[in-house]
Amino acid sequence: MRSQRPSMLSRSFVVIVAALTARGTGSSVLAQALKDVQASDAPLVLKAQGSFFVGGDVVEQTQRELGDLGPGGHITVNQMYVRYMVPQGGEGNVPVVMVHGATLTGKSWETTPDGRMGWDEYFVRKGHPVYVPDQVGRGRSGFNQAVFNNVRAESAPAATLPRWIRFSDEVVWPNFRFGSKARDPYADSQFPVTAVDELSKQGVPDVSFGGVPTPNPTHKALSDLASQLNGAVLMGHSQSGAFPLAAALLNPAVAKGLVLVEPGGCPSNYTDEQIKTLAALPVLVVFGDHRDTPTGIGIRPSWQLSFESCQALIGRLKAAGGQAEMLNPAERGIRGNSHMIMQDKNNLQIADLILKWIDERVSRRGVEKK
Amino acid sequence: MRSQRPSMLSRSFVVIVAALTARGTGSSVLAQALKDVQASDAPLVLKAQGSFFVGGDVVEQTQRELGDLGPGGHITVNQMYVRYMVPQGGEGNVPVVMVHGATLTGKSWETTPDGRMGWDEYFVRKGHPVYVPDQVGRGRSGFNQAVFNNVRAESAPAATLPRWIRFSDEVVWPNFRFGSKARDPYADSQFPVTAVDELSKQGVPDVSFGGVPTPNPTHKALSDLASQLNGAVLMGHSQSGAFPLAAALLNPAVAKGLVLVEPGGCPSNYTDEQIKTLAALPVLVVFGDHRDTPTGIGIRPSWQLSFESCQALIGRLKAAGGQAEMLNPAERGIRGNSHMIMQDKNNLQIADLILKWIDERVSRRGVEKK
Repeated sequence: MRSQRPSMLSRSFVVIVAALTARGTGSSVLAQALKDVQASDAPLVLKAQGSFFVGGDVVEQTQRELGDLGPGGHITVNQMYVRYMVPQGGEGNVPVVMVHGATLTGKSWETTPDGRMGWDEYFVRKGHPVYVPDQVGRGRSGFNQAVFNNVRAESAPAATLPRWIRFSDEVVWPNFRFGSKARDPYADSQFPVTAVDELSKQGVPDVSFGGVPTPNPTHKALSDLASQLNGAVLMGHSQSGAFPLAAALLNPAVAKGLVLVEPGGCPSNYTDEQIKTLAALPVLVVFGDHRDTPTGIGIRPSWQLSFESCQALIGRLKAAGGQAEMLNPAERGIRGNSHMIMQDKNNLQIADLILKWIDERVSRRGVEKK
Repeated sequence: MRSQRPSMLSRSFVVIVAALTARGTGSSVLAQALKDVQASDAPLVLKAQGSFFVGGDVVEQTQRELGDLGPGGHITVNQMYVRYMVPQGGEGNVPVVMVHGATLTGKSWETTPDGRMGWDEYFVRKGHPVYVPDQVGRGRSGFNQAVFNNVRAESAPAATLPRWIRFSDEVVWPNFRFGSKARDPYADSQFPVTAVDELSKQGVPDVSFGGVPTPNPTHKALSDLASQLNGAVLMGHSQSGAFPLAAALLNPAVAKGLVLVEPGGCPSNYTDEQIKTLAALPVLVVFGDHRDTPTGIGIRPSWQLSFESCQALIGRLKAAGGQAEMLNPAERGIRGNSHMIMQDKNNLQIADLILKWIDERVSRRGVEKK
């Protein structure tokens, strides 16, 4: 096996850490992430924390499909890993589930690239139990490896392989709207651009463009999680931005509120019946600034198009009697927010706006107390 | 892309949840993991919690290698994700770093399959800052996907693919020593076998047999993490059981104690100089019971062989003046511990033995206070 490593690496140009300064980012690249982590002044008091799984399918696979180290048999795939924190005294408050976007994991919601508090901890400190999954196919949720081993053994053609997506550091700048091009931030950018290399480390290969079943098992897992929690606010981001809608349609009774943070798009093909179901639920869509930036990604020329698709959905929901709304901080004079709004320098200011909405639209509406 | 999914799934027989009862495991399989989670009576009071990365190499990849969604450019690979919790008042105590084994992630140390407290939280409650990484190539640390996309595009031969390893549920029973064969637990088994299907969900594909650079970047990342912490106890398990030794040899000054939990093996080829270095450090090896069980895995006929290789290393370290020791609970009348000893029903009893060793051999030895 080891003989394959050089050929794998030879396809890529390994830049050692010492060479990073040459890329013009100075000492921030050399900063060790741990030393930048800032602890809060007040302790975090948890009733409980831990992790568990939701869903999963048991499949039978051959020895080859399992990588030839041991015999064939059954494994579980399509399960969803969830980490959670419940604040002391917050057991009765509505839980919030935070789902990450493409090429990312639940890490998105944790400590920011420059070491500040993530939304996971902030929402807990504001009294909400918080549940952070890794999407099925990513991170600690794993993926189905069988096809890769079959191709390796030449028992399946290479064309059956799903692709693995990652975004280059360069395309992240316009696509996540830190600036119009790499290493050239907008003057008012809220993203902590000196720590952009720490964001690069959050990237993992994403097999969901072909390597995850359709419909995506994460939809059902989110719905089941909300059910197990006796109701929850479902929050998605980017790739998963519209997942709360899909999960709510599976079981609207447990979807207490839907928060769509910078969704890649809002569906335009819902039936009138689906619109009626969703109109009964509180829906908040959140978009940052600089949405006209050309992304550099072919499938989505600009995030303004995503914004407009969500404006259209909000219009349909409102016409059906719903209370869907857009949170567009730029309209309130809060400028420069990026696609990674939960990591922006003013991330807690944005969180406060969402928390206020949850309080007004979800909590006061009378969520089931456990 | 979607047209590939059926062919991917057709290679596996999907067993729906309702059919699981037919596998003879009864209602435990149908149990939802969340409802089994048991909260502690006392709150967990943290000075800090969060996550960060250690290490990482910036590489340049083509559009194809990045999955063709966006243009080519740089990404980071070989970084190590770390989640941490620091107990209020425990900042001055020696931190403990817990590394997981093959086909697993940092989840190993979190909530047990049957919903009890994991070692991550227990060690925090006992006053130690705890750091839980995902090995490079796994979970939230990601892996280098370039070769897979090159093979998919037929610009590289299938034989260049590294294999992805998972263990079948059936082979886990003898390999992890829950019983001599699947679904037939030892009478004294300490593993919570009614929740073995929840353990199955912890499995993720493992590319470290060929898809991670040599030497494994996790060694250096662990050493760097210990350095950033101004000293730490490094604890490995199974595949990573010997990683603390490798990390210590890179920077012995910051490796305050090495805990090898059920290592796959202890190296027999250390030079006298390496032995001298390691003999200056507190080393504890931990092995459970039923080590003679035939594993069903060709490369390791029994864990007794691993045990003996570590006994041999302990012998060399002692002969060089070291204080290495074996913790073999069975010798103390604590029977039935499995390979997944941190998840066993008596996991906190075993943790207490390790904590006592840390207190006596590491903390009282005078660790640097931060």
